[in-house]
Amino acid sequence: MPREATRIRVAFHDVDSSQRIHFTAMFRYFEIAEHALMRSIGLPYSRALQEYGFPRVHLDCDFRGAVRFDDILEVSAEVERIGQASWTVRFEAHKLPDAELVAEGHMTIVATDPSTERPTPIPRGLRLALEGKGDLSPARITD
Amino acid sequence: MPREATRIRVAFHDVDSSQRIHFTAMFRYFEIAEHALMRSIGLPYSRALQEYGFPRVHLDCDFRGAVRFDDILEVSAEVERIGQASWTVRFEAHKLPDAELVAEGHMTIVATDPSTERPTPIPRGLRLALEGKGDLSPARITD
Amino acid sequence: MPREATRIRVAFHDVDSSQRIHFTAMFRYFEIAEHALMRSIGLPYSRALQEYGFPRVHLDCDFRGAVRFDDILEVSAEVERIGQASWTVRFEAHKLPDAELVAEGHMTIVATDPSTERPTPIPRGLRLALEGKGDLSPARITD
Amino acid sequence: MPREATRIRVAFHDVDSSQRIHFTAMFRYFEIAEHALMRSIGLPYSRALQEYGFPRVHLDCDFRGAVRFDDILEVSAEVERIGQASWTVRFEAHKLPDAELVAEGHMTIVATDPSTERPTPIPRGLRLALEGKGDLSPARITD
Repeated sequence: MPREATRIRVAFHDVDSSQRIHFTAMFRYFEIAEHALMRSIGLPYSRALQEYGFPRVHLDCDFRGAVRFDDILEVSAEVERIGQASWTVRFEAHKLPDAELVAEGHMTIVATDPSTERPTPIPRGLRLALEGKGDLSPARITD
Repeated sequence: MPREATRIRVAFHDVDSSQRIHFTAMFRYFEIAEHALMRSIGLPYSRALQEYGFPRVHLDCDFRGAVRFDDILEVSAEVERIGQASWTVRFEAHKLPDAELVAEGHMTIVATDPSTERPTPIPRGLRLALEGKGDLSPARITD
Repeated sequence: MPREATRIRVAFHDVDSSQRIHFTAMFRYFEIAEHALMRSIGLPYSRALQEYGFPRVHLDCDFRGAVRFDDILEVSAEVERIGQASWTVRFEAHKLPDAELVAEGHMTIVATDPSTERPTPIPRGLRLALEGKGDLSPARITD
Repeated sequence: MPREATRIRVAFHDVDSSQRIHFTAMFRYFEIAEHALMRSIGLPYSRALQEYGFPRVHLDCDFRGAVRFDDILEVSAEVERIGQASWTVRFEAHKLPDAELVAEGHMTIVATDPSTERPTPIPRGLRLALEGKGDLSPARITD
């Protein structure tokens, strides 16, 4: 299923007084990688959010190694599971140049109807794109 | 003119690898104090934002002393100037228990029409409240 | 085992363009609650961090309800498990005044030797405090 | 004097419920650009911070235009003034592809002795680099 990797330099403001990354920064990186994944399948959130809500209902992260200021990470996001109204993205962060795995985690996203805020079946265009079968044309996500 | 003070404990995630507060955290504290000020004059932003936009067009801050994890600050916000479409709030952050001044700054806010995003005269109810003449009743800000 | 609850008002900067809390803000609230828990058992991190490192190696959160700007949350942190070198804290966030459960999650923390950054057995004073048997005196955490 | 520009994509977590960037995000971008400037003159903070402290004592920003999720900004940082113990960097953020100026501001940084936290004359190697006369070799900043 679709996968996309993004390079991120660890910013000074993402590091806490332990001289290591604050864990919330890794979750921000995961989301940046997820958004890059969505752009790569032709459905940038900046467009998709005009029609649907996509609240995150589950997050987890396991840290495997130390991350410090100015480290360069490659953060990958890959579609792992597609359900009726939700899907799960798996993340890995590797520290360059040695590609040491420093964090891995998951995010589960629910498609919701913005007027009711209730879960709604994943629209067909979005489902095809998440399955890697999208045509990447600038169509509406409900196509 | 109206003034309100708020106590804030410096959180771990607001401190960077210098063992001191990251400067952006002080701006977050200023905004928390500004929102407390708005609630104190009867116009919480959670209501006001339903009718108007309030982008911030100017920010400044001068740091006077070191601020560290777990410090308790008293952050005050005071209306300093009221113009046609904008107003300026002045902030001071004092570290307790000695009330040492550790930061001071300003924020200028513009009232905008959400449909056009253009500046609009400060609505009458809001102007009265900023002048300290509001009646604090749960009226619409355009009263 | 020890448990502590903290009230947190959802700040404007913690809400994203969906008009709901950004998920990383909930993790910041969890950490604020965890730090309140540590203070309540007599071992504030602002002291403990002078002797040990406490990296977080696992985080998870499940969201159960919508959280918006200016909501008041009660966020509880409770020691759930104590191992050799690590312990796990369980969190719940309830929205007031109805105490609706809006998020729950976990954080696993490892005691490390700052000079080697390797896990180290939880020091005795800290273990007693996590078990609710600390004497809350301002002693060193290695007692 | 030295100047460096950095491209930054506005992340989802940097946008607030107004659908525009939260002002604190612009300050984070300024700091990212400042750190790119320091790397470009051969003195990355990740090295310089091992010998000196560099607290920021003044920040300001004026916003000139709306910035939204997924906008691409070019943020420039330029040394504007060099004093005895402090220097000032000027920032501009332009929105691509039209290069519309959306924000401009300043940051004043003080060189401090980490043991005393008192201002100290800018070390010679750093001063030469800030003046654009550094040799960019991996020397100590006190050269």
